[in-house]
Amino acid sequence: MYRTNTCGELRTSDIGKQVTLCGWLQRSRDLGGMTFIDLRDRYGITQLAFNMETNSELCQKARRLGREFVIQATGKVIERSSKNAKIPTGDIEVEVSELNILNEAKTPPFTIEDQSDGGDDLRMRYRYLDLRRAPVRRNIEMRHRMAMLVRNYLSNLNFLEIETPMLIKSTPEGARDFVVPSRMNPGEFYALPQSPQQYKQLLMVSGFDRYFQIVRCFRDEDLRADRQPEFTQIDCEMSFVEQEDVLQTFEGLAKHLFKEIKGIDFEPFKRITWHEAMKLYGSDKPDLRFGMEFKEITDCVKGHSFQLFDNSELVVGIVAKGCAEYTRKQLDSLTDFVKRPQVGAGGLVYIKYNTDGTFKSSIDKFYDADSLKRIAQCMEAQPGDLMLIMCGPSMKTRTQLCALRLEMGQQLGLRDPHKFSPLWVIDFPLLEWDDETQRFYAMHHPFTAPKPEDEALLDDPNRWGDIRANAYDIVINGCEVGGGSIRIHDRTLQNKMFHTLGFTDEQAAAQFGFLMDAFTYGAPPHAGLAFGFDRLCSIFAGADSIRDFIAFPKNNAGRDVMSGSPAPIAQAQLDELMLDIRQPISQ
Amino acid sequence: MYRTNTCGELRTSDIGKQVTLCGWLQRSRDLGGMTFIDLRDRYGITQLAFNMETNSELCQKARRLGREFVIQATGKVIERSSKNAKIPTGDIEVEVSELNILNEAKTPPFTIEDQSDGGDDLRMRYRYLDLRRAPVRRNIEMRHRMAMLVRNYLSNLNFLEIETPMLIKSTPEGARDFVVPSRMNPGEFYALPQSPQQYKQLLMVSGFDRYFQIVRCFRDEDLRADRQPEFTQIDCEMSFVEQEDVLQTFEGLAKHLFKEIKGIDFEPFKRITWHEAMKLYGSDKPDLRFGMEFKEITDCVKGHSFQLFDNSELVVGIVAKGCAEYTRKQLDSLTDFVKRPQVGAGGLVYIKYNTDGTFKSSIDKFYDADSLKRIAQCMEAQPGDLMLIMCGPSMKTRTQLCALRLEMGQQLGLRDPHKFSPLWVIDFPLLEWDDETQRFYAMHHPFTAPKPEDEALLDDPNRWGDIRANAYDIVINGCEVGGGSIRIHDRTLQNKMFHTLGFTDEQAAAQFGFLMDAFTYGAPPHAGLAFGFDRLCSIFAGADSIRDFIAFPKNNAGRDVMSGSPAPIAQAQLDELMLDIRQPISQ
Repeated sequence: MYRTNTCGELRTSDIGKQVTLCGWLQRSRDLGGMTFIDLRDRYGITQLAFNMETNSELCQKARRLGREFVIQATGKVIERSSKNAKIPTGDIEVEVSELNILNEAKTPPFTIEDQSDGGDDLRMRYRYLDLRRAPVRRNIEMRHRMAMLVRNYLSNLNFLEIETPMLIKSTPEGARDFVVPSRMNPGEFYALPQSPQQYKQLLMVSGFDRYFQIVRCFRDEDLRADRQPEFTQIDCEMSFVEQEDVLQTFEGLAKHLFKEIKGIDFEPFKRITWHEAMKLYGSDKPDLRFGMEFKEITDCVKGHSFQLFDNSELVVGIVAKGCAEYTRKQLDSLTDFVKRPQVGAGGLVYIKYNTDGTFKSSIDKFYDADSLKRIAQCMEAQPGDLMLIMCGPSMKTRTQLCALRLEMGQQLGLRDPHKFSPLWVIDFPLLEWDDETQRFYAMHHPFTAPKPEDEALLDDPNRWGDIRANAYDIVINGCEVGGGSIRIHDRTLQNKMFHTLGFTDEQAAAQFGFLMDAFTYGAPPHAGLAFGFDRLCSIFAGADSIRDFIAFPKNNAGRDVMSGSPAPIAQAQLDELMLDIRQPISQ
Repeated sequence: MYRTNTCGELRTSDIGKQVTLCGWLQRSRDLGGMTFIDLRDRYGITQLAFNMETNSELCQKARRLGREFVIQATGKVIERSSKNAKIPTGDIEVEVSELNILNEAKTPPFTIEDQSDGGDDLRMRYRYLDLRRAPVRRNIEMRHRMAMLVRNYLSNLNFLEIETPMLIKSTPEGARDFVVPSRMNPGEFYALPQSPQQYKQLLMVSGFDRYFQIVRCFRDEDLRADRQPEFTQIDCEMSFVEQEDVLQTFEGLAKHLFKEIKGIDFEPFKRITWHEAMKLYGSDKPDLRFGMEFKEITDCVKGHSFQLFDNSELVVGIVAKGCAEYTRKQLDSLTDFVKRPQVGAGGLVYIKYNTDGTFKSSIDKFYDADSLKRIAQCMEAQPGDLMLIMCGPSMKTRTQLCALRLEMGQQLGLRDPHKFSPLWVIDFPLLEWDDETQRFYAMHHPFTAPKPEDEALLDDPNRWGDIRANAYDIVINGCEVGGGSIRIHDRTLQNKMFHTLGFTDEQAAAQFGFLMDAFTYGAPPHAGLAFGFDRLCSIFAGADSIRDFIAFPKNNAGRDVMSGSPAPIAQAQLDELMLDIRQPISQ
């Protein structure tokens, strides 16, 4: 046996016991007569004590150990003379009588401390060392705990975890598939699943009325910041349910996680429609940790010869409470913020409502004090507040103002990562117009059902944009952490949907034929939802990046810099696969 | 709300309640005055009753429903006049007052019954219908239960489930990788993991001292019967452990599963060495549901002018208890069995030890009664027994006799699929000679540690075949359901191992460089094990095939005949990947 205890468990009640610990040397301190070593494992840190007087040989051996050496130490648990209240084992130490070096270690390229001196790239290259750091380790531990909680919660509700295939058929709709050449069937390919969507719907046809799976999914997209080519979903589907059943079930799951992981109880989650979310926050994933709702003032501001407002479809603003004192510099910087290409606005109008009741604005030329006061009334601003106003085409302006609202929330400290504001966004549009390709796309996916009351609109192409779907997202702190929909289980309606999306019968059959066939053999009404598990973990930990919740993530170029993948493969492998790599055309 | 209850839960205590059920029409019986429908869901079957007298319109509607229609029925729970003791809901029925057709169904291509009339191919093509059959559904349900038990058991022992990447670096050693072309890095490929071996070892270097993962793995092998290109492992690794710790931990897990799933308690599992297993059963995965150990009689049979025995390295047999009455035809058929190419023996010698004490054998010409009696004594045969003897080169003969032993066990009904005989096979050879390539291969994998007492033999190439590994398999009923080893954590020993396996430093660095680098930063002693989860499920259910424990399996050509994958992909996809498919050379 290598050890009797871990480095996290010894307490004063263990004083006098003979123990053996194993772990990594976190740091050592040589105080002349004594040498102390902090021994670290996953469970904590325990101080080892070596006495130069009573055992000089052992003490000298201890002094030769370097950082991150793997050692085994046997000795007696004794009370510490100077206790460390910061760690649970801080009242004791181990007076070592036997010391074995289990493995030596080169000096790590960065410090294994909570705040490491290693940059991102270095830590990724040596990810196995980065994972030794307590903050990263705790993320991975929390992820495990969350996965266990999810599985037990759903299993207790009669959900079955059913593994669906990873080598599936490529479906051109949506994001790009990763493909896998088949050696046994040259010229043919499997695809890696973007989600188990079709399989989980087949499971409903099979009668498994409550399915879930914590499952790896793949998307070959150009990676934006904080996207991973492989990611994990909590994928769920239910039969014989209406939207309310689905929302209740997964709100229950989310509350369970909040309770168990964060110790927080929640009232029923707020629900707002997609249209309301866009109107009040300019986003289908509003951050409700703070208010600062949009105030539409289009009618209120028109007719003052201010062309910009007069010619705008929408004039809309937010009120920054208590920010009337913002300096010229601060206001300029906000203007710069909205003019950045990522936001893309033409400019920003401000109105300061000073505490003395006077106004100062960037549109003083067009609006007198009374007019400004009327605007303040429309916007429900109080003395001391700052009004920030944007204008232009409705949807574009809302999106731009959303970015400003989030920035102001950030500046005002209203986006505390340890405060949580979950909500449901419901009644999404079924279809989304794409200017580039001049056609409608499914906003969710082609199996999402329209609201029954809007179904008739499918017959009128001019109204397609108005059709609402039975689709819902769960949003926490401005992140969409999950989403789903009621599915179409009727083949006729599904065919109509395919035609709406511009599929010919042949295309629909080629891509979704087996699912459509399945639907003719008795498909139950069904619905589902999937959570982005990586994101859910990061939000629970109050972190921005999902990377630190993935043991071995890839960088923004889809590369694992630690293992060096992807990489060229042997010519023999290509030969077996009957593939040739095309040479880039030199220009 | 679609339903108040499932089809499996109503009992006499529910009589009088108004309920709504949903499900599939299993069968209907029209008895003139009454129509009865068996309504099926995942939870069971409930009888619906329609009365022609009291509600002829509804009854007529019910009569028009076809098999597998999806319906919703509301009515009152009443006591059945003729009870059905075979199903838990057999004491009640639902007197239906309202009936909705939720979806129609075409007549399924095979019957949805425990014993279906559909052949394998048809059932695979319509797998979603096959999954409706109770025996298949129960397999999937059991798999879920086993996965939950595994996760909770290991999690309670402080194991963390950590997800490792699916898009990894290709390693030519071992079986063939499936590869995934990288669009963002043209000419480069990811590989799908054959196992998370290297990542779990890195996690040990990271200090996560107890890791597990129920994880999909991939092998692009020519598929033998009952192999799948993607399969699931329960993958585990531990630090600061010796072999005994690992065996205890996972024996505990296996016992927990047997207890919870099968209600069986076990004594400590038997352990035998690889050499013993080969000597007594001719297999490293002996089926110990029955004895019939090999009896080596080489010395006993020599010197009787029987050239075949005299010239054989090994003469070895088994005793089939009470089979002295086997007919000529039965014996011929056994001879045919061992001569089949799959077994490949030259022939079979039998000695009948008749109940009257006389002998009858195929070698009477060379052995008199006394000699045969001496053989019987060597083999511990009793009157009434049949001795079956084979001879030739040791290992080959053992393997052939193993096949015969299993066949005899089968014929004698000694291989009851609902009896379980688990054991550990330990002390595997470290290296395995391959005649074809004339080199040694790692029997387990290149990271497996030799037994410390055999380590010195690495310096003597003539003794390489004798080196024992700290490797172990868990075997149940003749199947290897899991295996693992103590890993090499010392870089010097690992380098020596690579050289033994014929790797140059460059090859080792190219393939395993990042793992070897990691080992220089403080690798703890560690060890691991992986269970084949599909196989484990099939054994627990007493089934031969793993296919029925996978929701959507592939056939022996690696094809999913339901979805039609693999399949050609669009030229645009190939263009993006910078790949060309090589045209077969016409001959």
